Amino acid sequence: MPYYIGDVIKDYHKLVIRTPEAFGKTGINVKIKTRVEDIDPQQGLVRLSDGAQIPYDILVMATGAEAVRLDIPGADLDGVFVLRNLTDALRIKSYLNEKHCRKAVLIGGGFIAMEMCEALRNLGIETTVAIRGCRPVTRWDVEFTDIIVEELKKNEVYFLPETKFLAIEKGTTHSLVLKTDKGHLDADIILMGVGTRQDATLTKAAGIELGASGAIKVDFRQRTSVPGIYAVGDCCEVFHKVAQRWVHLPLGDIANKQGRVAGQNIGGRPAEFPGVVGAQSFKVFSLEVGATGLTEKEAVKYGFQPVSAMIQGLPVGRPMAQGEKLGVKLVADRATGKLLGGQCIGAKGAIQRIYALSVALWSGLSIEEVGYLDLPYAPPFGGAWDAIHVAAQEITKAM
Amino acid sequence: MPYYIGDVIKDYHKLVIRTPEAFGKTGINVKIKTRVEDIDPQQGLVRLSDGAQIPYDILVMATGAEAVRLDIPGADLDGVFVLRNLTDALRIKSYLNEKHCRKAVLIGGGFIAMEMCEALRNLGIETTVAIRGCRPVTRWDVEFTDIIVEELKKNEVYFLPETKFLAIEKGTTHSLVLKTDKGHLDADIILMGVGTRQDATLTKAAGIELGASGAIKVDFRQRTSVPGIYAVGDCCEVFHKVAQRWVHLPLGDIANKQGRVAGQNIGGRPAEFPGVVGAQSFKVFSLEVGATGLTEKEAVKYGFQPVSAMIQGLPVGRPMAQGEKLGVKLVADRATGKLLGGQCIGAKGAIQRIYALSVALWSGLSIEEVGYLDLPYAPPFGGAWDAIHVAAQEITKAM
Repeated sequence: MPYYIGDVIKDYHKLVIRTPEAFGKTGINVKIKTRVEDIDPQQGLVRLSDGAQIPYDILVMATGAEAVRLDIPGADLDGVFVLRNLTDALRIKSYLNEKHCRKAVLIGGGFIAMEMCEALRNLGIETTVAIRGCRPVTRWDVEFTDIIVEELKKNEVYFLPETKFLAIEKGTTHSLVLKTDKGHLDADIILMGVGTRQDATLTKAAGIELGASGAIKVDFRQRTSVPGIYAVGDCCEVFHKVAQRWVHLPLGDIANKQGRVAGQNIGGRPAEFPGVVGAQSFKVFSLEVGATGLTEKEAVKYGFQPVSAMIQGLPVGRPMAQGEKLGVKLVADRATGKLLGGQCIGAKGAIQRIYALSVALWSGLSIEEVGYLDLPYAPPFGGAWDAIHVAAQEITKAM
Repeated sequence: MPYYIGDVIKDYHKLVIRTPEAFGKTGINVKIKTRVEDIDPQQGLVRLSDGAQIPYDILVMATGAEAVRLDIPGADLDGVFVLRNLTDALRIKSYLNEKHCRKAVLIGGGFIAMEMCEALRNLGIETTVAIRGCRPVTRWDVEFTDIIVEELKKNEVYFLPETKFLAIEKGTTHSLVLKTDKGHLDADIILMGVGTRQDATLTKAAGIELGASGAIKVDFRQRTSVPGIYAVGDCCEVFHKVAQRWVHLPLGDIANKQGRVAGQNIGGRPAEFPGVVGAQSFKVFSLEVGATGLTEKEAVKYGFQPVSAMIQGLPVGRPMAQGEKLGVKLVADRATGKLLGGQCIGAKGAIQRIYALSVALWSGLSIEEVGYLDLPYAPPFGGAWDAIHVAAQEITKAM
């Protein structure tokens, strides 16, 4: 009789209609508003905050990751939210409505912050993105972030780079004021998207080994170092097929796959999770933004010899073009000739290319092959030589 | 000093500003309105219709394919066009304008006919598609053609299946009348898209071997059986990586690639064309339609043991869905577990999936791997489990 313990679920049931009672009928017990205080792998016991002890044969760590709050005064004031889970989303939504928010400040420039910009602007809320660094979504190269910053401006999002955050205080004209080294920012709501961290209390208690990334170390079957304990999702590592090493990549689709693989293994149908290539995407206003594999910087870090090419291609055949742009950057390894990664940006067709490139990375294709891939050419969807081909051939020439 | 001989080019120059004179300046001579009457590979000579003889060291056959006209009375009347090259397109365009055409009949239901439907309807022209068979674009399975026929109807294209074409005559209310076993169809213009054939006169004269498909047999460097003679484009075969045999697949992007490979080899930089996987797409009104690899029928023909799954997926994450549909059909081989092909249809995201599936076919991935591919998940572009994953896992279960 498996147990699920969580607090996210108390809001989640509103959407999926899975109340603890509904789970109960399926033979699954769900405990909400309950913390696991300790794990005892020797005895196969989980100790709960309500004093109960639950014996287990198999334990799955699916603890996710915790959103970080800036360590500044006022970071926990009413009206300051983190961007992490559904509970956060529902709380933010209620707050925006109830308080009739007109002015929002986003601290942090990750892809979720970018998505929030669009959501907030769609509600007509004046939005500022303030970040410590000089550009948002640092996974993407500067050629791409320049375009993204342009898109933010075009949609009247104020972008404030290289900002030091000093404190959040109650405001006068608006409910909050964010004090920075660049001045004071009024806000009805402040959203923090400045990264995640993991609560290592439980893993330490259970003696579960962590990987180099700090997340739980697992094998291809999602088993941790402790017999009988599995881990899935944002709390554990995943094998990166391009980097050929275990990394921490907390993304929803990966978590889903790991959950299924763990479930199969627990259920007695051995399965291995083949790993990932680092495929990722988001939409910000009219822009599709995608990346897959390694950036040049990551490639160097992992011992490759990256060669790259950036092109401005077309998402449609030339005769149909009406000013569309499609930025494609590819990275390959000089030593092996293999594709290492790609980034795409554009109002149309960027994700289409990241789909193809992700499979090319998965399969370990050479950059030369990428230059001749058979893609479903038709003028509404690309040129006879696709932007991918053009970029790949640029690199082939350079090598 | 290479020669190009063609007649398409006389219209093409209007678009690309490459007059014979412009070519001449680059050291390239272009002869227009000239036929090659004979090839003599022994002497390395090409004999032209104007009586001239051109000696060659290297000869490239880039003769394309010729559109077939129905063998019925009146098939060559004024106002009856084939759908083949740019010259045809320009002639059709002029004719539509000059004659103020209000009523068109398309004979044939290939993907170019489908594209023409959209073009004609956009001009406000009443359009009928009449075909001999029972469904259009027979490369796609019936689940897909049903959706396409629905889309035609929705856009007020009259679809007339299982039609016998008897004759075309001059009309009274309209300039033409197409007589069929289902009655008479008035038309201001009739477009025939009923396939292509190859003029074998030259290849026979030169002693160039044809493949099983009837198109010119080439090797991976685009060399024909006759030393010094290359072939590229719709006149020659191409290697199908999934079928593992040489096929005839007359598509523009393939022709482009073959041209480059031949050019490299002729120029002294040996290159091999790796082949194709049969990726293909078109747009018809609001629908993206794509296919890649083999259909079940083709798979059987080539000795595979196909297992297939068709799903109705989503092109976006479930919480963002607003009634969109994405049809995905995958085919795999029971014996090897490999992906053999895929078809996708939908208003959004179909081609994106065909891009990924084409690379998966190129790389010979198993259906099991396709079920766990790392794709760039974000709700505006797909679910955490992509429609591709879902379809692949359906097949994995079935195997």
